[in-house]
Formats: sequence, structure tokens, C-alpha cells
Amino acid sequence: MKINQNYSRLEESYLFSTIAQKVSAFQTDHPKTEIIRLGIGDVTLPLCSAVVQELHKAVEEMGHKDTFHGYGPEQGYPFLKASIRGHYAVRGVHLDPDEIFVSDGAKSDLGNILDLFDVDNTVLIPDPVYPVYVDTNLMAGRKIVYLDANQENGFLPMPDEQVKADLIYLCSPNNPTGAVYTKEQLKQWVDYAAYCGAVILFDAAYEAFVQEDDLPRSIYEIDGAKECAIEFCSFSKTAGFTGTRCGYTVVPMALQREGMSLNHMWLRRQTTKFNGVPYIVQKGAAAVFQEEGMQQIRKNIAYYQHNAKVIADTLTGLGIWYTGGKNSPYIWLKCPHEMKSWEFFDWLLQEAHVVGTPGAGFGKNGEGFFRLTSFGDQDKTAEAMQRIQKLLK
Amino acid sequence: MKINQNYSRLEESYLFSTIAQKVSAFQTDHPKTEIIRLGIGDVTLPLCSAVVQELHKAVEEMGHKDTFHGYGPEQGYPFLKASIRGHYAVRGVHLDPDEIFVSDGAKSDLGNILDLFDVDNTVLIPDPVYPVYVDTNLMAGRKIVYLDANQENGFLPMPDEQVKADLIYLCSPNNPTGAVYTKEQLKQWVDYAAYCGAVILFDAAYEAFVQEDDLPRSIYEIDGAKECAIEFCSFSKTAGFTGTRCGYTVVPMALQREGMSLNHMWLRRQTTKFNGVPYIVQKGAAAVFQEEGMQQIRKNIAYYQHNAKVIADTLTGLGIWYTGGKNSPYIWLKCPHEMKSWEFFDWLLQEAHVVGTPGAGFGKNGEGFFRLTSFGDQDKTAEAMQRIQKLLK
Repeated sequence: MKINQNYSRLEESYLFSTIAQKVSAFQTDHPKTEIIRLGIGDVTLPLCSAVVQELHKAVEEMGHKDTFHGYGPEQGYPFLKASIRGHYAVRGVHLDPDEIFVSDGAKSDLGNILDLFDVDNTVLIPDPVYPVYVDTNLMAGRKIVYLDANQENGFLPMPDEQVKADLIYLCSPNNPTGAVYTKEQLKQWVDYAAYCGAVILFDAAYEAFVQEDDLPRSIYEIDGAKECAIEFCSFSKTAGFTGTRCGYTVVPMALQREGMSLNHMWLRRQTTKFNGVPYIVQKGAAAVFQEEGMQQIRKNIAYYQHNAKVIADTLTGLGIWYTGGKNSPYIWLKCPHEMKSWEFFDWLLQEAHVVGTPGAGFGKNGEGFFRLTSFGDQDKTAEAMQRIQKLLK
Repeated sequence: MKINQNYSRLEESYLFSTIAQKVSAFQTDHPKTEIIRLGIGDVTLPLCSAVVQELHKAVEEMGHKDTFHGYGPEQGYPFLKASIRGHYAVRGVHLDPDEIFVSDGAKSDLGNILDLFDVDNTVLIPDPVYPVYVDTNLMAGRKIVYLDANQENGFLPMPDEQVKADLIYLCSPNNPTGAVYTKEQLKQWVDYAAYCGAVILFDAAYEAFVQEDDLPRSIYEIDGAKECAIEFCSFSKTAGFTGTRCGYTVVPMALQREGMSLNHMWLRRQTTKFNGVPYIVQKGAAAVFQEEGMQQIRKNIAYYQHNAKVIADTLTGLGIWYTGGKNSPYIWLKCPHEMKSWEFFDWLLQEAHVVGTPGAGFGKNGEGFFRLTSFGDQDKTAEAMQRIQKLLK
């Protein structure tokens, strides 16, 4: 019996547990102080009423023999795939229903997609980044090449033809930096992938936060992307589904490597190792793309966008460098007074009772930076920014 | 870019698609004939009212800011883990809450658990068997040794010390044969695993159908199993959750290999590649183990068990050899008149308009056998058996 020894080489991530310990220790020492949390990327607004209504209806269906649903198609019900297809069509992206796979969230599929690729591939991953890209590849023992994202490139690294990669992770709008690639920039990535024969794994989980019309919300808005990219998306941030679990992955028919269709490989993977998303949840998700649901989720996104603006405006006023905030729920700022990430974390907690996420937790290039999220309560976010302004002005 | 070439070596499974085509062709030729389907292992009774009520409550909670649930723990909410723990305690199996992982179904975890093991392991898989065990290992390129299950051993193969394995799949009550291991038999498997240093992957998805008190429903009823076995279970057949998606996997703390805790490895795998089961679904699942829910699901299981008895009694009356039916929703019969599996399938469809599953679809030892399921409607199941009796007596 041999275990997968790559697991023994994984480093434990103490980022969020260390944050929790520090916050808890501070609260114990200062029981009357109100701490405001702008650290974790979880939503706080409830599901919108159009979704709640559909969920209730679907629950009722499941309780009666003639409307009960047993096993559904592993790749998702046609009604939800049709809604997702419509969502793409609005932006001029035409997908075949068989190119859409409904999932229980982008995180699962971003990890599981690696089943399709040999261990002997070189993976290009930006730094700083959502830690899941790195850990899932370390678990499989793949070689990782990091791509420096930094203040100089606005945390939007571009391809280097000297470096050759087989798999490329791109996340736009980015977690944690909030930076968004333009169409021209993504075109360079698509061209580079075509040149290398690489596959881009495009994480579009935050696409709903893009406000500027000329910024791409899907990589398939770029010519040639269907021949080289898989896109991962989610209802988590779009419609507050972090605890409801639904997403979707697009694997185009045009995406072929070594004579195999990656679409057929993924279909085979999912029909073998997955049994679909709950019928109830899929009905709720479909409501998101109906007129009423769409209006309601836009209102929720606007609520978070308002928070992002309050944070961004405060930082602008203080002359602090940052990315994100406008087309993203995240604001990534340079720690003032040349502080290191954890130093600023401690200082902000002690002096303003505000919790954020130290950038160093997302990779070496995150050192000296800090992430704030717009997913909190509006009043509390405004108060947090007043405290920060008072502290730093 | 190298794809995972193991996928190109997978054989397409045409079992259920061939069945669907044959049934559809027959129906087109005989539009007025009522076909009765006893082929697919999907439930037909709706969710019980205790579950429906909890689902509605949870949906309501998700619609209000003060009761909304965002990201939950990847390994499941404590309230559901406590219910599952209680379910095991009834049978004298004591688990630590951290040994229980709530999943979106046994199928997902049975596939994903393989992440923890090196490719260079020998896998022992009974034949015939649920096809997922074979396909998930072929996808990873592992060496498979088949274990002959046949009429001679009552489709309950026992270990052979001459054959050495690293991973061992056991499914009891078995899919497709319905055969159930006794405690003494499982003890031999646990001893063999200890001798080999192997890990048993125990699929207990049908444990709720065990009626005889002295038959084990969990491998942890066997001394020593916590040192060598992972158990997969599901609400799918227990509570009709095939379309609602919830299961659980037990990885004991005592299970260590090469100095690593498989429990910690699985926790790391799940926190990295999974984001938990919907809060709503977990609330519904917890209702299954409450008094009212337990009474209701027992009634549903009794409904299917009645079907199984009707099928079994008919076969007994006809002098046809079979396994299963009493402690399992499946009945595995020897095709009459020395017919081959597909030959009997065609004959039964043509002459009795009854659909079952050809045993040959589950492995070479399935040839000449046939699976009937008890998950259908009671009246239709009774009529199907009357037709079969008339045809075969």
C-alpha cells in the first residue's frame, strides 16, 4: 500500500485559522470592542426572493410521487443549461448545451478538472493567487511555474514566450487582487496558449461584478478561446449561493488535445465520479437568470459594489495604492508606511478593530499587500472605512 | 500538453443506453403495450414529509439575512454529523465527529478517495460489480485484480492469501447481486487487509435494507476495521435522496499508512477540492434520523422490501436460483433455460414486457444472470411478476 506522498509535501495553510485566532484573542482582551470583519470572501445578503420561491416549489415537487425527481443527468438539467446558455448569449457567446456542465461550485471543478491531464505537465500559476490552484497541483505532483503579479504590472501578468507551460490558470476579476484583464490582454493569453498548445483554466467566478462594458466577463469573448480554454463559473458570488452550492463549467467541443475531446473526457469523468447537483438547487439557480431573479441579484451586487466604492474612495482619499474595487468585490491595497502584510493586519485590528486578509497569505508577491472585501454590511463597511481614515489620514 | 491517456483506454459503457434503445424500439413497434421497468436502481417514492418540512424551513432561513447560511464547513455541519454519529451508535459503533465527512453522495467520494493513494497500488475488485469501482481506477491507471463472485460462492467471494492487494472494494448489501456478507465473512476480510496492509473501501449504500439483525450494516461492527477500512454511505436509497444528493464517508482516526493519517489526508483533499453540501440539503438529511423521519423512511423501505419479497417469492416458486431480495433492494437471478443475459433481456421484453438489467453488463461473471430491482411501484411490480410467472411456469 502506497499513499499519495505528494500530500506529505503539502504545506498546511494557516492563513484563515491564524486570522481567526488573532481576532479571537483580541476580542477576549477587549470584550466590549466591536470588530468589523472585511476579511473573508463570503456573501452576507440572503438568497433573493425569486430564488427562494423556486426552491420552495422544487421542495414541494420532491414531496409528491408524480413530481418527484430521482437521479438527474450528471451534467445538469436541460432547463438550467438553457438558462446558462442564454446568459452567455447576451454577451455574444454561443454555446452548445453539451458544452455546459452544471457543478456544485467552481472550487470542486477547478480541482477535479486536473483528472484529465497527465502529471507530467508544467502549470503556470500567477502569484499571488487563490490557494486552491497551487494545492490541487501539488497534490498531483505537477511542476508549477509561478507568474509574478506585482505593482509594476498592476497585478495582471502577461505571457512570456520564453516560459513554456501546458496548463495556465487565469482568474479575472482576480481573487485576491480584484484586477481585471482587458480583451486585448486576454487575447495575448489565448495566442500564447495556442502557441504552446496549452490549456487555459479560466476562473470567472467574479464575472458578475464587472461593471465596465468593454471588459470581458468570459474568455469566450476572445477569438480562438474555444480551442484552448475551459471556463469555471459560479452562482456563489453572482447570486449568494456560497452555502447553496451551484456553479458551471464550460468545456468547448473545439477543445481537443492529442486526438481526444476534452469535452468527452470531462463528460466521462463527471458521469463516473459525480452524480449531479440537487434538483432543488438547480431549480433555484435557474430562477437567477429569469427577469425577476436577474433584477434582484443585480440589486444585491449593487449593494456590494457600493461597499467596494466606499472602500476604494477612502483609499484614494488617503493616497493608498490599490487594485480592484470597481469591477470586483475585492480591494487589494499596498500596506501604508511600508508595513508588511501581517504587521498591517495586527495594527489595523488593534487600532481600528477592522479585520482584513494579509496579502502574504496568497503568495510571496502578496507580501506588503492586504485584501479587503465588499461582502459585508453597508453600515459596518462605512464605519470600518471611517475608522481607517481616522487612523491613516 | 499531455492529456491523461488512461481515458483513451476506457471502454464506453453501453449498458443502460443499449437498454434504453431496445425498450424504445419495442415501444415504437408496440405503442399500446404497457412496459414495466424493473431495471434501474432509482427510487420512485417521494421524499418523506419530515424531510420536506425541514427543507422548506431551511429554504426560508436562506431567504432572511439573520438566518442566512454562506460557506459551511467542507466536512459537513455539526448537527448532521451528530445525527450520523447517533445512527452508528445504535449499532454499537462509536465514531468521533471528525471521522465523519458529509458528501454529495457515495459515488463522488468512492471516486475522489482514490486521490489519497499512489497509482502504483494493486486494486482488488469483485466481478460482477458496480462499474464505478473499475472505471475510476482505470482512469488513474491502477492495476486491477478481479475477484470472482459466482454461484458457487453465493456471489460473496472471500480473500485468497495467495493474491496480494493494496486496495479492496467490498459492497454489502451488494450492487448488483444483493448478496450480504456475514460478520464472520467480513472479519476474514478485515484480517486479510491487516495481513496485506491493504485498505478496504466499504460501500454500505444499501445498509438500510438489511433486515436480519445478525448481519452487519457497517464494517465497523467488525473488530479491527477502524485500522483498515473507509466506509461510504448515502441517503440515496435510505431516504430517497437520489435527486437530493447527500451521503457520508467515514475515515477513522486509527487508519494510518506510511506514517500519514488518511483522515487528515481526506480532510485536506475535501477542504481543497470541495465546498460542502448545500445547507438546505444537510437540514433535510438530518431530519431522516429524527424520530418522525425515521418512522417515515422505514415505511418507504418496507414498501420496497415488499416488492423484493414479491419478486423473490415468484422466483422461489418457479425454482429459479437467485441471491438478494431479503436484505437488499436487488434480486440477482440465474437466467432460466440457460439463457445468456441479453438473450433473457430480449425474451422478457418481448414476451412479458418487463425490463431488467442484463448481468453481463456488470462484469464477465455476470453473464447468464439478470438483475431486478424493488424500487418500482407495488402494483406494477406485482403485475410484472405475474407476467413472468405465466411465462416461465
